[in-house]
Order: sequence, then C-alpha cells, then structure tokens
Amino acid sequence: MKVYVLTLFPEMFRSVLGSSILKRAQDEGFLEVVLVNIRDFAHDAHRTVDDYPYGGGPGMVMKPEPVYEAVEWVAQDLGRKPYVVLMTPQGMRFNAKMAESLARADGLTLVAGHYEGFDERIRFLADMEISIGDFVLTGGEIPAMAVLDAVSRFIPGVLGHTDSAGNDSFSDGLLEGPQYTRPPEYRGMKVPDVLQSGDYGRIRRWQRKEALRRTYLRRPDLLADACLTFEDRCFLQEILSEEGPAREEEG
Amino acid sequence: MKVYVLTLFPEMFRSVLGSSILKRAQDEGFLEVVLVNIRDFAHDAHRTVDDYPYGGGPGMVMKPEPVYEAVEWVAQDLGRKPYVVLMTPQGMRFNAKMAESLARADGLTLVAGHYEGFDERIRFLADMEISIGDFVLTGGEIPAMAVLDAVSRFIPGVLGHTDSAGNDSFSDGLLEGPQYTRPPEYRGMKVPDVLQSGDYGRIRRWQRKEALRRTYLRRPDLLADACLTFEDRCFLQEILSEEGPAREEEG
Repeated sequence: MKVYVLTLFPEMFRSVLGSSILKRAQDEGFLEVVLVNIRDFAHDAHRTVDDYPYGGGPGMVMKPEPVYEAVEWVAQDLGRKPYVVLMTPQGMRFNAKMAESLARADGLTLVAGHYEGFDERIRFLADMEISIGDFVLTGGEIPAMAVLDAVSRFIPGVLGHTDSAGNDSFSDGLLEGPQYTRPPEYRGMKVPDVLQSGDYGRIRRWQRKEALRRTYLRRPDLLADACLTFEDRCFLQEILSEEGPAREEEG
Repeated sequence: MKVYVLTLFPEMFRSVLGSSILKRAQDEGFLEVVLVNIRDFAHDAHRTVDDYPYGGGPGMVMKPEPVYEAVEWVAQDLGRKPYVVLMTPQGMRFNAKMAESLARADGLTLVAGHYEGFDERIRFLADMEISIGDFVLTGGEIPAMAVLDAVSRFIPGVLGHTDSAGNDSFSDGLLEGPQYTRPPEYRGMKVPDVLQSGDYGRIRRWQRKEALRRTYLRRPDLLADACLTFEDRCFLQEILSEEGPAREEEG
C-alpha cells in the first residue's frame, strides 16, 4: 500500500516512521510512505505557503495553490486520482471502521495542515475530512501519524499474528476486558483465580463477560452497535444486577 | 511545566519534540519533557517488560513491576506524587477542555503502553485514563504526542499571539468557520465579497454565522453545550431555514 503524506514538516515523521509497526510494515514491503513537502510547491523565492486571513483574525492561513499543486503531483506520480483525506478537527471522527476501510483506499493521501487553518478552497480537494478528536493541535502531522498507524494494522500481513487486530478494543464493537500477566500476585493485587484454572471454557466466558462489563461501565454507548449473542445478553443481565444502572458517557 | 513520558520507545518522540510548537515551548523554557524508558526498570538481564497473558490470547501484556517502578522514580525526581495519565483506547475521550485542565496538572506523567495492553494492575497507578478515539494504535506514543501538543497550547506564553488558542475550533464550543487568504479568486473559486468589504461589523457577523452554520451542519451535538448569545440564536434560526433540519452525527 502506498500512502502519500502532504505536510510542511516532513521531518516530524522521521522517528515515528522509523519505529515500531510502521518501520516493520515498510521494511517488509507492505507499506510505502511518500512524504511530500507542500513547501516545494510554493511559487516565490521565499517559498511562501501561508498568508493573512481575509477579514482579519490572528494567525495565518494555508494558501490554496501549493496544496492543489502537491495533490496534482501525487496524481501524476500515482498515475490516477488519489484518495485525498484532509486532517482537520472539523472532520468526521476517525474510528476503527474507518481505519479498516482506508486500508483499501487507492493511493491514500493524507494532507496535514498547519498554521491557523486551511483556505476554504482546499476543502474541495478532499474526498474526506478526518478528525481524531475535539481538540486542537498545532498541525495535522500527529493525527496523520495516528491514521497511518491505525490503517497499517489493517493491511494484510502487517501484524505478525494475523488475528491480532481482531482481538483489539473496538474490533467487535466492545472494549477489551482486563488482562493479566505474571507475577500472580503483585503488591497485594492478585490475578483472578479463573485465569489460572486451566479451564478454557470458563476462561473464555469470564473474558467475554469482563469485556462486556468494562464496555457497560465505561462506554455503554458502544453496546447499541455491538454484535451480541444470546450468551452476551445473559451476561449483560448479570452485569446490570451486579453493577446497577450505567452512567452517562463523559461529554 | 514539567511533563514525564513513560514509554518503551523514547526515540519515537525525538522528531516531534524537535519540531514546531513543542520545540519552541521547550527552547523558551515553558515546557520540559522528560522521556523515561520503562525498560530501564526491568529486573532481568534481558530487560523484559512484557509477558504472556494469563488465560491465553494473542500478543503480550505489559508487566506491572517496571511501570510501577518508573512511576516511583518520577515521584522521587519530582519530589511529590505525579499526576499519572494512562494512554489507552478504553479511557475517557480526550478533548480541548481536558487539555486546558491538564496544562495545570502538577507533574503530569503520560504512560504510553505497547504490545496488546497493560496488566490490569497498572491501571491502579493512574489518576486518569485517556483515549484519543475509538481506534487501536500499536502503542500509546502517538496519543501521548497529541496530548503533549494540545496541552502545550494552553501553557501561558507558549502561543505567540496570546488569544490564538481562544480562536481555535472548540475553544468556544463551536467549529471554526471558513477561512480565506489570497488569491481572491483561485480556479474559479472566489473569496466571499463580505470578507473584502472592509466593514468589520459585517465581517464579524458573517464569521460568527458561518462558524455556527459549520457546527450545525457537521457537529450539531456541540451546539447543546455551546455558549450562545441572543444574536447566535437568531443566526441559528436563519441557518435552520436556509439549510433544513440537521443530520445525525456520524457514528
């Protein structure tokens, strides 16, 4: 999979691309990341990419021309129209399902803004606008890294054990339940007996019920869309009587 | 402000800490970031920080001892109990308000996990668990970078123009409206006349109405908590008649 990242700060990506899953995915040929410096498409000697906003206001706004021309360069390099995603806090909230579908996008191109924002006309270039949450960052670079990492996990072959992405939080619409490793007791806190019982049927049921409990306690909103079996619904009945009514999700 | 980041991959932070706002905040003495390698607190010659999960399952789980001891080291370095934040997709959704309050946290300590997850007992160390969204990443490093960047913007003095954070999306509970810079016409797309009118009262009203329109069209959920004046409510009436009923927010 080839991913283009358009940014004014390509050097911000070096350490993340050189570590962990993104490094492995690239080393093994599953992922190719092309960093495109938007500044290379500026027109003047000062390589200007931003300008004052019309109507006043603090900060600078990214000019349309360099971004348009950078996307045109990508289209030429790719030999077809890329799928352009703008990183902006105004976009659709990024989630696991989106990551899975972007892993199949043809010529995925992430555009990271900087300064106070994009000239409005840049939005017309985008097939999609993505936000990673209701907070403001200095640029779209860190969100683009998050998208790159989350998407890579869905490229076939990238994760060592093929079923690993299928066991993560959200893969089945639930949060993961508690996990334990050695030592069996640490500072007075013990690993639950059931996990040491060797009874795999009981262990599986406990894990499922605790995943449901955690989801019920922390993110009851997720239960509405989760795929629940008859056994899951029985567990939820038990959890409800054990825990009392769910609280509202935090704003 | 001193922030500790506990991670197995401190080198992932180098380029982001060396760029943009985080570099400036550190250079100017507003921010000190201490990268703590959790692996330095492993007990054996192999510096083991993970182990197999009890009860089976794919992947490895982070052991409790090195994380506990790393947090104890931070407490000693700081001279008091740090405010410990665990980065996990099961945590509370990070947002601008949280960023603002974390900018006042005493000895903020971000713990980035890796592998399939944390041993459950590590959660008892945390004052707070934070998620940046419903998606899974290979580690908590990129989310920790997002928190670092968003929080830095609220440290007094970090942003050049002091009112800049106050004009971002979410600062007043709304999305930002459209912004434009030169050229006045680009590929047939024109900057709205009002922004070139020089009539600042009209410009301010247009900007406010368009911020309300964007919020109404993209994130109507935000309007419930936004602080709206009588004028804002009149704008919303106009927008409702111009745009029709709001759609539901994307899941």
